[in-house]
Amino acid sequence: MEQSFVAWAKMRARRLPQVKLGIGDDAAILAGSLDDCVVTTDTLMDGIHFRAEEVSGEKIGRKLISVNLSDLAAMAAEPVAVFLSLCLPRGESQQMAADIYEGVCQVAEQFQIALAGGDTNCWDGPLVVSLTAIGRTVGGVAWLRSGAQPNDAIVVTGPLGGSILGKHLDFQPRIHLARLIRDRVPIHAAMDISDGLSTDLLRMCDASHCGAVLDLDRIPVTEQAVQLAGTSGKSPVEHALGDGEDFELLLAVSETDLPTLLSVVGQSQCHKVGTFTSRTGLWAREGSRIRQLPVTGYVHH
Amino acid sequence: MEQSFVAWAKMRARRLPQVKLGIGDDAAILAGSLDDCVVTTDTLMDGIHFRAEEVSGEKIGRKLISVNLSDLAAMAAEPVAVFLSLCLPRGESQQMAADIYEGVCQVAEQFQIALAGGDTNCWDGPLVVSLTAIGRTVGGVAWLRSGAQPNDAIVVTGPLGGSILGKHLDFQPRIHLARLIRDRVPIHAAMDISDGLSTDLLRMCDASHCGAVLDLDRIPVTEQAVQLAGTSGKSPVEHALGDGEDFELLLAVSETDLPTLLSVVGQSQCHKVGTFTSRTGLWAREGSRIRQLPVTGYVHH
Repeated sequence: MEQSFVAWAKMRARRLPQVKLGIGDDAAILAGSLDDCVVTTDTLMDGIHFRAEEVSGEKIGRKLISVNLSDLAAMAAEPVAVFLSLCLPRGESQQMAADIYEGVCQVAEQFQIALAGGDTNCWDGPLVVSLTAIGRTVGGVAWLRSGAQPNDAIVVTGPLGGSILGKHLDFQPRIHLARLIRDRVPIHAAMDISDGLSTDLLRMCDASHCGAVLDLDRIPVTEQAVQLAGTSGKSPVEHALGDGEDFELLLAVSETDLPTLLSVVGQSQCHKVGTFTSRTGLWAREGSRIRQLPVTGYVHH
Repeated sequence: MEQSFVAWAKMRARRLPQVKLGIGDDAAILAGSLDDCVVTTDTLMDGIHFRAEEVSGEKIGRKLISVNLSDLAAMAAEPVAVFLSLCLPRGESQQMAADIYEGVCQVAEQFQIALAGGDTNCWDGPLVVSLTAIGRTVGGVAWLRSGAQPNDAIVVTGPLGGSILGKHLDFQPRIHLARLIRDRVPIHAAMDISDGLSTDLLRMCDASHCGAVLDLDRIPVTEQAVQLAGTSGKSPVEHALGDGEDFELLLAVSETDLPTLLSVVGQSQCHKVGTFTSRTGLWAREGSRIRQLPVTGYVHH
């Protein structure tokens, strides 16, 4: 089926000016520029990141491209093109491929990104979907994990926790938000929150050689985190700290620039949840008490 | 294991000047330039492209990067960086990941390519390995499939057939050859022979809106094709036409430029096997007889 699917895929993919040569040759050619090329890749597997019998191919496709775009947003990169690889279970493969492709294309078109190539195979194993996203830096700006400084504000761009109830399959990668911020506010460090705030914040601290104090009362919590807390034996804020796949941005910004950030993105997308410190490790402030925080992030096993 | 593997992988990967930011952040940044960016991706699956119980991880890694580099060579692109994704069977995953990584790195280092990122997961399914290779055009040259013209010579860069006996796991992607040729000889069309000469030549014909006549007597045949013919009931040249995964280059070049090509790459890497024609379809000349050729290329099922 590869050839007919490629022909169909070629028709389905939008032609965009940044792609000089798209699907159908040995490789794709992206129009060059003076900006740097930013590349990320993520693979999702049946039974690990989704359950194929419970989720539509379209939703799987949307999630696949969105997790990659979330990485580009976390670098402040402008997405240019994506490349899709599918390992399809034999039998249902044609419809499954079309559904996944449809989901990828929907999100790609929303952000004016080209689906510029890929690889499709059938086998007797479970569904595996893989995507590589290529972006470019704009104006030389690239947000790394390693630039957080003591006394910087810790900012998250939305409420956290409980994504397992649905958001992990249906979220907006923060591309627009990154576009808004990158020209207007100096960001010291950034990453997307994919494995839970506490795990990812500690990664940013490690990369930046600093520590962090979280104000637990100020962490925005989703309704879903509250809902889960009703039966899980954990508090809503514990869900916000430990649940994975929020795909909000985690930013380090100086206190001086915080008001500008707030005015650029608005209150609902700018939540100061703590402060970076020179003392390493992850700490929690509740009232006047400070205690070390156990790291409870979610890692796929 | 993801984190410790990433840390190890980061150390193992060579630092190269074209990567501004490699493994360990949300995405990689490749140094920009005025040249076009060339991207290709390929996925190999246990039971389809190799048998994990019979082949070392190192060989799988070497094959994975080499099939991608073969695509870049077929575009005359200079490889810059590769991105590796692994779906590892639980249990043996740590050693398997290291072995595959080793194989990828060996070939990457041979061609001065950076392994600049990727994604690693464990699961209960079979081994799946996926790689995206990024290259750049040099001097504005990019070889497409679509430029073959009637009366152009059909050239292959080495003997064909029988790769199943070993070559499919252990071949040289024609990067050096493409480097040699691209500044010196105008190539009208190029692709790598991955699904068998007859299938891939017909693809080039379709893309170029022309046909081709093959001189069956002039097709260079591997020893392995002869060996297989001893028991397969097919002739050696049928193996050369139909077996997959040769990973030689298929070139369209004018008769005028053929002597230059020959002098640049030498006799052993320049075999004229026929002529493109204005009459569409794939034809075979044996002596003075011309007959239509059945297309027998190998496609993974």
